[in-house]
Amino acid sequence: MTTISKNAQVITFINVFSVEPANQARLVELLARVTDTVVRHAPGFVSSALHRSLDGTRVTMYAQWRTLADYEAMRLDPAPAPLFKEALSIATFAPGSYEVVETFLPGLRSATP
Amino acid sequence: MTTISKNAQVITFINVFSVEPANQARLVELLARVTDTVVRHAPGFVSSALHRSLDGTRVTMYAQWRTLADYEAMRLDPAPAPLFKEALSIATFAPGSYEVVETFLPGLRSATP
Repeated sequence: MTTISKNAQVITFINVFSVEPANQARLVELLARVTDTVVRHAPGFVSSALHRSLDGTRVTMYAQWRTLADYEAMRLDPAPAPLFKEALSIATFAPGSYEVVETFLPGLRSATP
Repeated sequence: MTTISKNAQVITFINVFSVEPANQARLVELLARVTDTVVRHAPGFVSSALHRSLDGTRVTMYAQWRTLADYEAMRLDPAPAPLFKEALSIATFAPGSYEVVETFLPGLRSATP
């Protein structure tokens, strides 16, 4: 389970892969394999969650790392490179690094006139 | 706090807004306001987390709803429409609806020869 909190001391990556629907299952499999076998064992990895779009055109990885330097060190590791390369042969990649501004939970609407 | 779990009975929206860095703070403010005052009070809203990209060019909302129909009913509600309209006057919007495939936590690498 991944938790999102404003006060967590993490850097968040929301990496959106665009893919032909025919290749979505293969992309999911590649990203799950590289995360399970390599990425999650890297120093500074906190948590990640892999998402499959319902329309088949995207796969999005939501990932938390301790620092940007930890993430960049993993990206330079030769071990996952072949799997990343295979993933990028069937998908385009829009990376993003973020901080959490705020989280919201359900609530009763305030009374208004 | 938002939690991401493979077994949660939710539909996940990962909505990426692209914005000029000069307008990022305003967009964050608009999306926080519409979420706090309207969206989180809608039937079927489970949780959301607002993210600001470190490079200033994106704002991403990670949101969980009970069903697609609940989300669509909120989008048809006239109450939040003016705030959404103002947000879309300074940003472009790439929506996505997802299911969680898998979550990953840190682990020791298996022993290999």
